[in-house]
Amino acid sequence: MNTYRLDLAWDGRPFCGWQVQPNQDSIQGRVEEALSRLFGGENIRVQAAGRTDAGVHALQQIVSFTAEAERKEEQILRGLNALLPPEIICSKVEVREEGFQARRASKLKMYRYRVLHRKIRSPFRHQQTWWISYPLDIELMKEAILLFQGTHDFSAFRAQGCSAKTTIRSIQAARLLEVDDELHFEFEGKGFLRHQVRIMVGTMIELGARGIPKQRILELLVQKDRSLAGQTAPAHGLWLIWTSLLDKIEEIE
Amino acid sequence: MNTYRLDLAWDGRPFCGWQVQPNQDSIQGRVEEALSRLFGGENIRVQAAGRTDAGVHALQQIVSFTAEAERKEEQILRGLNALLPPEIICSKVEVREEGFQARRASKLKMYRYRVLHRKIRSPFRHQQTWWISYPLDIELMKEAILLFQGTHDFSAFRAQGCSAKTTIRSIQAARLLEVDDELHFEFEGKGFLRHQVRIMVGTMIELGARGIPKQRILELLVQKDRSLAGQTAPAHGLWLIWTSLLDKIEEIE
Repeated sequence: MNTYRLDLAWDGRPFCGWQVQPNQDSIQGRVEEALSRLFGGENIRVQAAGRTDAGVHALQQIVSFTAEAERKEEQILRGLNALLPPEIICSKVEVREEGFQARRASKLKMYRYRVLHRKIRSPFRHQQTWWISYPLDIELMKEAILLFQGTHDFSAFRAQGCSAKTTIRSIQAARLLEVDDELHFEFEGKGFLRHQVRIMVGTMIELGARGIPKQRILELLVQKDRSLAGQTAPAHGLWLIWTSLLDKIEEIE
Repeated sequence: MNTYRLDLAWDGRPFCGWQVQPNQDSIQGRVEEALSRLFGGENIRVQAAGRTDAGVHALQQIVSFTAEAERKEEQILRGLNALLPPEIICSKVEVREEGFQARRASKLKMYRYRVLHRKIRSPFRHQQTWWISYPLDIELMKEAILLFQGTHDFSAFRAQGCSAKTTIRSIQAARLLEVDDELHFEFEGKGFLRHQVRIMVGTMIELGARGIPKQRILELLVQKDRSLAGQTAPAHGLWLIWTSLLDKIEEIE
């Protein structure tokens, strides 16, 4: 068996999300279909470092798969980009050692949530940002986001249908940046619960809009009650920016 | 009668172009429909500083209209942005003097043609740029574009169906900029012939790809034969960046 790693980027707009679902158009489905053609009809299954929901965008998602047939990296890169729809690209292909699995290998991910913060909506970014026209206390939110850093029980910040065994997660870094007319909420961590980033952002927007003190975040972490946290921010503002196979310490060295 | 000026921006993707066409979705049609509702059912016709084709984007197009009813600027701005589809916004409303007409008042326009110049296509900009993956002699094209400046007979650079009375046009400024992984071909002028910008860009790309000397541009201007110029660059790379009611000299003073 030959083992490969792919780096993918996509515009989440037309898809039902990463995962294959019956009668729906998924990124995984499109990639597997293209790979099966490239590998002479072999039935190829890919595994991603993580799943993303419908509407979520990715700049760099890492994926692994094995195949009986052998193909050159450059051949897979060109072939995939010729076969994939315009909203998905493959930016990198690597032959890997046997046993390589994207999910197990992935050590850190960075998600960015983009809020368009201005009076008038944008005709170009309406599917790439969450548009908020009302005033927000940005300094308050900049301090509040820091409270998510570290290891916590994120029970209050996960979707109702989330089936993760443990609700403990670690956030290595969290920050809020102002970039032109956008607010970028950025989170780095090994893994996140279902809708975790979107609920954290929805909660911070509520704090910033109503001037609720940042300590509310700590209360929510302790109370562990989803119904007390804010709304789930819409999926189309969420971007998976990068996935790293190295943990933070190794990266710095 | 009350006279108004609107500034509009739109993503050209879903529309058949600016102008109303039977059974098609036009920007003009959407704006007139929204205005008619805002003005209590009055039949409103708008006039733009110029037309744009299907797929072409605009950051600032100026439009004028008259109405029996009187509305406040802020009221029109909010109302339009609530009624228009997500791909169109109104960024400015002004009450103008009687007789104001966007077409007559417009003195200068800037068009930008965006080429994505890299090996791999983009999943986010495939409807906003023309993707070219082959090598281009950028220095050659930077010099060639300057030859379009001034007053010329642009017969070789207009669409076959173009019905303009005169083919003489003046280009006040033309330049080629490198912006990250994009090439921006920019042209300022009072008016352009049908497909003129797209044919000028298509021709320059041909020069840059084949290393044809820039003098070819001067020959084409003299020969006045459309069939000797390059292909028409695709519409989705073209952006109307701004429209000015002042001519260059007034702007500087």
